[in-house]
Amino acid sequence: MPSISKKGNQMPESPIRKLVPFAEDAKKRGTKVYHLNIGQPDIKTPQIALDAVKNNDIQTLAYARSEGSEEYRIKLANYYKNHNINVSANNIVITTGGSEALLFTIGSITDPGDEIIIPEPFYANYNGFSTASGVTVVPVISKLEDNFSLPKIEDFEKLITKNTKAILICNPGNPTGYLYSEEEMKKLKQIVLKHDLFLIADEVYREFAYDGLKHTSVMALDGLEENSIIIDSVSKRYSMCGARIGCIVSKNKQFMNTAIKFAQARLSPPTYALIASEAALDTPQSYFDDVKTEYVERRNTLITELKKIEDVKVANPKGAFYCVAELPVEDSDHFAQWLLEKFNLNNETIMVAPASGFYSTPGEGKNQVRIAYVLNKKDLIKSVEILGEALKQYNS
Amino acid sequence: MPSISKKGNQMPESPIRKLVPFAEDAKKRGTKVYHLNIGQPDIKTPQIALDAVKNNDIQTLAYARSEGSEEYRIKLANYYKNHNINVSANNIVITTGGSEALLFTIGSITDPGDEIIIPEPFYANYNGFSTASGVTVVPVISKLEDNFSLPKIEDFEKLITKNTKAILICNPGNPTGYLYSEEEMKKLKQIVLKHDLFLIADEVYREFAYDGLKHTSVMALDGLEENSIIIDSVSKRYSMCGARIGCIVSKNKQFMNTAIKFAQARLSPPTYALIASEAALDTPQSYFDDVKTEYVERRNTLITELKKIEDVKVANPKGAFYCVAELPVEDSDHFAQWLLEKFNLNNETIMVAPASGFYSTPGEGKNQVRIAYVLNKKDLIKSVEILGEALKQYNS
Ligand SMILES: Cc1ncc(COP(=O)(O)O)c(C=O)c1O
Ligand SMILES: Cc1ncc(COP(=O)(O)O)c(C=O)c1O
Repeated sequence: MPSISKKGNQMPESPIRKLVPFAEDAKKRGTKVYHLNIGQPDIKTPQIALDAVKNNDIQTLAYARSEGSEEYRIKLANYYKNHNINVSANNIVITTGGSEALLFTIGSITDPGDEIIIPEPFYANYNGFSTASGVTVVPVISKLEDNFSLPKIEDFEKLITKNTKAILICNPGNPTGYLYSEEEMKKLKQIVLKHDLFLIADEVYREFAYDGLKHTSVMALDGLEENSIIIDSVSKRYSMCGARIGCIVSKNKQFMNTAIKFAQARLSPPTYALIASEAALDTPQSYFDDVKTEYVERRNTLITELKKIEDVKVANPKGAFYCVAELPVEDSDHFAQWLLEKFNLNNETIMVAPASGFYSTPGEGKNQVRIAYVLNKKDLIKSVEILGEALKQYNS
Repeated sequence: MPSISKKGNQMPESPIRKLVPFAEDAKKRGTKVYHLNIGQPDIKTPQIALDAVKNNDIQTLAYARSEGSEEYRIKLANYYKNHNINVSANNIVITTGGSEALLFTIGSITDPGDEIIIPEPFYANYNGFSTASGVTVVPVISKLEDNFSLPKIEDFEKLITKNTKAILICNPGNPTGYLYSEEEMKKLKQIVLKHDLFLIADEVYREFAYDGLKHTSVMALDGLEENSIIIDSVSKRYSMCGARIGCIVSKNKQFMNTAIKFAQARLSPPTYALIASEAALDTPQSYFDDVKTEYVERRNTLITELKKIEDVKVANPKGAFYCVAELPVEDSDHFAQWLLEKFNLNNETIMVAPASGFYSTPGEGKNQVRIAYVLNKKDLIKSVEILGEALKQYNS
């Protein structure tokens, strides 16, 4: 029997995936499960985007241009200008989600055996894309006590080798909710310039910056034109995760020419989704204001409630819609499964993401979970009540 | 300045891409360009698929399940049963086009340095996906004089090394139009069983088999359950290339579990396209009958006209919608560019795909072009007339 490859064997499983059968069983037993485990918002997609697809008059659903139409990229460049990112259409390659933007970026700048430094905890699928390219993720740890702020520059420098190709950050962070300050971004700038590295900033949560804080894009930094790469996506911005449109933004021409070759090989981004995404650019500001207000209230509710539980520690997220909480348990993988398999409070339970999947240092995050505040406030309050009761019972 | 990787440097450019600026210039000069260069049919997408998207009532465009919904995969399994391919839902992983199916397949079964044997000329993007995975394409040549039928089994065996992981065929073939017979498929079966290889069959043109010939799927062969992998797509079947839905079909569990991990890392196939693709399964048989009739007439027209030109040789395609023609030129890359840059017949010219991009043996196919019969008969006749005049002028 022919067998899969070493690389195939190393492909990580999604950290949530193994819990799915337990959630399904719980539902079969009639238990309601609150899903705090996923980055799938319940927010409505802008009507203007939904309508554009419903009103399309396509007769032959044809391939789109591999890197996206000039028209869409011109409009996107305009969106970026409004966000203090000065780019033109040919600095943009449209991708099938931020996911593909990550894959093409890593594919373009690394060879097997190369290394990418990533502050951990980080978005779990960075592991998958790195493994697919034969790249080693070198984690630099950030701490809940520090709110997951940028690790010290010395911590990065210690890890740089001749194989290091890039530093990858997520800003604001999934799962941390941390928003890097301009000062932190400037520190990163210095280190990548000094060591001739790419600085890849996953900015798919750009709009989700709270408490009056300003998001600092990697491409708003002067002098970093050849080094900086933005990973972007419509998934979270317009609550249209199922569209599958994202993009790569960079002024490094050699890099962009290479990314376009990856795009050509897979022919085209999805055409209906392009229609929705182009239309979404005209979403009124009031939509974003409402969404932000909603998330801030949810975050405040969630954090306030979590802090009421004894021995639960939680960072103060300033962006995105996740928080990492430390629980009085030894093994949050076991606890998360137990919540679904063994526990219920009046026939209700919660599903959380064990944080170990967001770390690549073995053993890190074992007592942490990621909670996504993608539910309404009432459900969030109920969920934290369930968590509190569950912890009591689990630890007795 | 940080630079791209060796792999990035090796990524091939699409063989048509470099001609695009010349086509654009020709159009700017007011010259009409007949596009015989692309696999984008002009055929209408089934109304039932278009309507399903127009009538959707999505409010929040959410991620779909990474491997596709159970419901869609059950329906797809039913489609396969009707095509003599006996599979169930869990033998199917939905992908973003056949392109992603190829990427996940190669990613799952190879490590950098591994080899895949492919009869050439082959679909040019096999090069791109192989390069992206660090895999070496080992070509085994098939000949226009033989209609591009299966090379001798000895030719394959000579190329098998300890690094060989798979044989990849395209059936019916792009660019050859060749349809492998059941006998040829059985020969391939024997060789992959003997050497413990995967046999990957790209069957995205399954429905396009002409002259009463039967398509033999790799999964219709007994005893090949652990070795066979189908690459499939809705792009050509329903003329919905812009949807970006395809799938991997295999009964090899270890392989499928690995492919699912690649699917999980990129989260979801495009949701609107899934709606279209699921609805398309109810396309009436009359649609396929009409399309087939149309393509057979186009092929007959094209081949008849091509054979009228002196010193043009052409294979007899039995499937798909391409043919490879040998022209009385030394360098078809140069000729194809000349057609766009220097030539016109009453202000009209043609764009063809130089065949060198479909070969990986250097120098092969230099006097060949691929012609896609994706235009109506009148335009095909006109196009061949232009080709004939152009050849006269080019060679004088
Ligand atoms: C940090 C981050 N980057 C990228 C992605 C990929 O998203 P998509 O492929 O839907 O654009 C996600 C999705 O959750 C994410 O959280
Ligand atoms: C032989 C073959 N395989 C795969 C593909 C990929 O098609 P898609 O990604 O649109 O499914 C094509 C497209 O032309 C093709 O010709």
